[in-house]
Amino acid sequence: MTGEIDRAAARANKTMHYLTATSSANVTTNPVSFSNIQQELSYILEHDNHKDRQRMKDLMRDPLFRPRWNISIDEELELAYQRLKLLCRAGIYSITDFRTNPTRIFAAHECLAYADVSAATKMTVQFNLFGGTVLKLGTKEKHHDLLLKGIDLLDDVGCFALTELGYGNNAVEMQTTAIFDSSTDEFIVNTPSTLACKYWITNSSLHAHWAVVFARLMIRDKDEGIHGVLVKIREHGTMKPMPGVTIHEMGHKMGCNGVDNGQLSFSNVRVPRSALLDAQSQVERDGTFISSITRPRDRFLKVADQLLSGRICIASMMLSGARMALTIAHRYASSRLAVGASGKSDTPILAYQLQQRALAPLLATTITLNLGLNYVKERWSAASGFSPETSTNDTLVAKEVVMLVCSIKPLAGWCAERTASICRERCGGQGYLSCNRFGSIIGFAHAGITAEGDNRVLFQKTAKELTAVAGSSVAVQQRLAAGRIEAALDIISPSSITNLHALRKLFIAREGRQLQQLLSAMTATGGGSDAVFETWMMQQSDAVQHTAQSFGEREVLEAALRTLENTSSSQVSPALRKILQPVIALYALVRVEEDLGWLMTERLISVETGAAVAPAVRALCGQVESNWGLLVDSFAIPEHLVAAPIAGDWERYNSVDNKGEVVNIKF
Amino acid sequence: MTGEIDRAAARANKTMHYLTATSSANVTTNPVSFSNIQQELSYILEHDNHKDRQRMKDLMRDPLFRPRWNISIDEELELAYQRLKLLCRAGIYSITDFRTNPTRIFAAHECLAYADVSAATKMTVQFNLFGGTVLKLGTKEKHHDLLLKGIDLLDDVGCFALTELGYGNNAVEMQTTAIFDSSTDEFIVNTPSTLACKYWITNSSLHAHWAVVFARLMIRDKDEGIHGVLVKIREHGTMKPMPGVTIHEMGHKMGCNGVDNGQLSFSNVRVPRSALLDAQSQVERDGTFISSITRPRDRFLKVADQLLSGRICIASMMLSGARMALTIAHRYASSRLAVGASGKSDTPILAYQLQQRALAPLLATTITLNLGLNYVKERWSAASGFSPETSTNDTLVAKEVVMLVCSIKPLAGWCAERTASICRERCGGQGYLSCNRFGSIIGFAHAGITAEGDNRVLFQKTAKELTAVAGSSVAVQQRLAAGRIEAALDIISPSSITNLHALRKLFIAREGRQLQQLLSAMTATGGGSDAVFETWMMQQSDAVQHTAQSFGEREVLEAALRTLENTSSSQVSPALRKILQPVIALYALVRVEEDLGWLMTERLISVETGAAVAPAVRALCGQVESNWGLLVDSFAIPEHLVAAPIAGDWERYNSVDNKGEVVNIKF
Repeated sequence: MTGEIDRAAARANKTMHYLTATSSANVTTNPVSFSNIQQELSYILEHDNHKDRQRMKDLMRDPLFRPRWNISIDEELELAYQRLKLLCRAGIYSITDFRTNPTRIFAAHECLAYADVSAATKMTVQFNLFGGTVLKLGTKEKHHDLLLKGIDLLDDVGCFALTELGYGNNAVEMQTTAIFDSSTDEFIVNTPSTLACKYWITNSSLHAHWAVVFARLMIRDKDEGIHGVLVKIREHGTMKPMPGVTIHEMGHKMGCNGVDNGQLSFSNVRVPRSALLDAQSQVERDGTFISSITRPRDRFLKVADQLLSGRICIASMMLSGARMALTIAHRYASSRLAVGASGKSDTPILAYQLQQRALAPLLATTITLNLGLNYVKERWSAASGFSPETSTNDTLVAKEVVMLVCSIKPLAGWCAERTASICRERCGGQGYLSCNRFGSIIGFAHAGITAEGDNRVLFQKTAKELTAVAGSSVAVQQRLAAGRIEAALDIISPSSITNLHALRKLFIAREGRQLQQLLSAMTATGGGSDAVFETWMMQQSDAVQHTAQSFGEREVLEAALRTLENTSSSQVSPALRKILQPVIALYALVRVEEDLGWLMTERLISVETGAAVAPAVRALCGQVESNWGLLVDSFAIPEHLVAAPIAGDWERYNSVDNKGEVVNIKF
Repeated sequence: MTGEIDRAAARANKTMHYLTATSSANVTTNPVSFSNIQQELSYILEHDNHKDRQRMKDLMRDPLFRPRWNISIDEELELAYQRLKLLCRAGIYSITDFRTNPTRIFAAHECLAYADVSAATKMTVQFNLFGGTVLKLGTKEKHHDLLLKGIDLLDDVGCFALTELGYGNNAVEMQTTAIFDSSTDEFIVNTPSTLACKYWITNSSLHAHWAVVFARLMIRDKDEGIHGVLVKIREHGTMKPMPGVTIHEMGHKMGCNGVDNGQLSFSNVRVPRSALLDAQSQVERDGTFISSITRPRDRFLKVADQLLSGRICIASMMLSGARMALTIAHRYASSRLAVGASGKSDTPILAYQLQQRALAPLLATTITLNLGLNYVKERWSAASGFSPETSTNDTLVAKEVVMLVCSIKPLAGWCAERTASICRERCGGQGYLSCNRFGSIIGFAHAGITAEGDNRVLFQKTAKELTAVAGSSVAVQQRLAAGRIEAALDIISPSSITNLHALRKLFIAREGRQLQQLLSAMTATGGGSDAVFETWMMQQSDAVQHTAQSFGEREVLEAALRTLENTSSSQVSPALRKILQPVIALYALVRVEEDLGWLMTERLISVETGAAVAPAVRALCGQVESNWGLLVDSFAIPEHLVAAPIAGDWERYNSVDNKGEVVNIKF
């Protein structure tokens, strides 16, 4: 056991490389000075590629980006495509950024999500899922030379045909086949059943020329596992589907109707042998199959690798939605007058404790998750495997990155949904008008919650990895130790309830305790696969979810603390630190409040301390809202992208007949 | 003090009349036998007007009611109107039901909400807000003879012009004026500013001929307070707006786009003196003003009276949304296979604890709120004031009805939002397709949450009434006593954690404790109006909201228990009782789980008992889900109204190209 921990400690030391190697990924190196605190905070929250972000925002001044609401789906689809195209043609970001500066791709998602959630969704499939897969699994002569430039310019549009109707939740069981025909040196791609249709495929129903089709590679009647095959699905120019390719439009959705989702099926579609994305596995002319990965299941995990960065893309877009909702809700709350002490309508609703109590926790959570996501971007970038410098053979590092990504995406998705829903509610009827944006953000958040992996399934994955590394990771061992009863007593008291270090200790102990309980339950199964499945899926679901959530929330808090304490890649001035401190404390204390019942029954918090939580949360809400202007403005969403009437002079907006549109409004 | 309580006791006795007088309102008298438990539960949940409900559901077999998704707003508006018209022409319900059988109007809302949330919204304005106001505040010769028949048949469409852009949250401060011109015997209606525009007015932008316009009645330069004036806003036939009436379409919304919401303004619009709805206040030919209500503020409360029944209409529609979402989510979860112990896709996702833990609390909450709403309908009906038998001069009864209505509507609205959102999430991508309905229900729920009074403002109203009656209501005094520390100890223990009587006692003590804390805080202000406002709005917001929620949840639990124990108007068989018991226990215990932190810090629950809550909730979730088929089918939503592909044979649905529509599908 000691040897195990020693080896783990050695690995942990190596991990530091990835923590400190972040500057190579072109992240923040703060300039000498800012003209004010808001600018400084803005710089820290945006984190990277500041000039490129500004260029993208400026480009979106183009009238093409002005929101349109009462339009047909056909118009919405066309708009999303044109907007994405305009941005791509500017040449700010490239698929090859994955090798040198992947945060620029995430930044592009964040900026575009402000303007058009559908265009941003099309972007993430084009650049991350499709483009990233071609880049990572394809090879230079056969695939990169053919496609990379066209992907950047949107001249070659692609989709990622992984999910099947019947196997969206168990993709490794998918049924689509790619059978090697040695007589013609081709693969024959087939959809054997309705359940095997490729389902929900973004970009497929209108714009894609290409699809990376995931299929069971069958060679000489042997199933070699899931591989990606590049299939041309439409003629360039005419945009007619290729022979044997059937594409159905999915129809109306609760959001993102500018995304052309399709259902794809293949009937004896023949592609050349070179269509196999062959960086890991190759098929020779005579049908000999070679792979650097031994187990077929691992081949599947490898080909689906872009789902990991896809989750960062989604988390990035989700937080854009949350920031947008908070910007609009705060501005309206500060200009909307309602009853004051005199009975007259003379008091901005933001003055009410009700409004502050609703908005402040969302504001604090969004800002703190933003700091957490910045850290996850750095960690993923340092181990992304797109370039030799970012390849790691350290399993613990790889697993930690997986856990970070698979916990931040759920937290960001739910944050966007709750933030937009509650902001909508707190803006009343005005929040219901599409031009005030909340509906679109709610619809987008729902997409984010289950896209690139259902949030709850990703939490299962996080918890599973955590139990897997528990024996070998020093850091996990330390958290387990901190969660033991004798260690956890007196971590926090009424007087230290807003102390960030006490809160951090509490978060560590909470995670350790939960993980320990989960590990005990799993050990008690004896390890048989049926018993493990039964326990994990039918009995310990709450513990699994709770553990993953505690892991993610602790990582986010620690990332925020590193920012506050200048041990991260960002530097924070004392003045900004004073403003951020209650924000981060509120984030943490709201999590404690949500989990207070469990924390008290586990005696991680005494009843006396528990009673101090709600008053402290209320006080912090007031403190955070006293800085709302600075905090919200630090999101730096330009007026032409906010473009919501209630965020501006809504009395004037309502003095003319505009039919709920903003096309003729000056922002 | 004793005398006060004696008088209160006398009043409470009288209240019993309203509790037991429900059979006059044509509510459930159970038939002798049912062919099965599901039918019995169905009968109890539907509560009233069973045959009329069946007729309405049958009428909606008409192809007109088949859902359409990718259509223009113009088509959506026309569809909602035509659907409502078809139903109205059948003559099942009438505006005069308010006098004799108001539950039939609520039942009509529930049925129509299954088919078209926009048509149901138009119905509630036509029948409750507009029609109900004409019926209650108008008089026979001037208004009823003119309009009632046309309202029933939708030949006279009306709207309820109360909310103004600047005063939606403080309507008593509204600015629209109706100035009496004695020289012509007319009122002149004017909109003095943009902020005074009538805003969000349903039915106004397309279909309404009439508006009840709420305005300050100005006579001889004296402001007599807010009154309702009947204004013709469009010509019958041509549908051209009348001179001086300007109507702007509100534009695209996040839901209910089949509702023609408009922004109205009036410029010197002249209406005859008879246009004043004059049941309470009259103006004579010479301008003499007479009112049976002394204080102008009370006149406002009287004219806005239909907002109260409007909240029941909304609660009714909200629970239809929740029932629909649960029906669809459960059917899909039972037919959607995912990974089982073998790794194959052979296990319905409903078998997973994750799915049960997500759905069961929503199912239990929806059913229990349904029982609670049935009780609120009875109480409101018995005191509605539309007929001599339903008029009450008992202030305590009137206030109790207000509290019941103002707490059930928020609970139902949030229940619909959470239920539809979580069901959507648990259905993954399939839940995102419009044809599977969740998006529409989420959009509708958001409308319900802030329509007819923002949920949070209604909770404020509930708490305010509760503090007002605390001194005089025996029932409230009893709850206050139950909340005292010495009384509250040992209410519940690990072994009684699912005992409904113990849970009821806990709910009573919780409410009493919270109310006591709120009363103490208000007493400490000394009673000055500035201090009262400051404390209520700026310091005690959590306590206000918490108190109202505890009141509502306790009322709902008690109503459900009366059903279970056959002390309500329904009779429950032993077999059904066995099935309902864990449902209601789960409803109650989930509330305890949500509030566990507070309950333990207040020592209403010990830490030991607190630790037993989550395991008990998990066990109840499994128990409730073991009866999911019976419970969900008891909602009795016919197949042609469910009409969601994933609630049926979704594999077959996906075998053809239907573009996400269901028009050609046989249900």
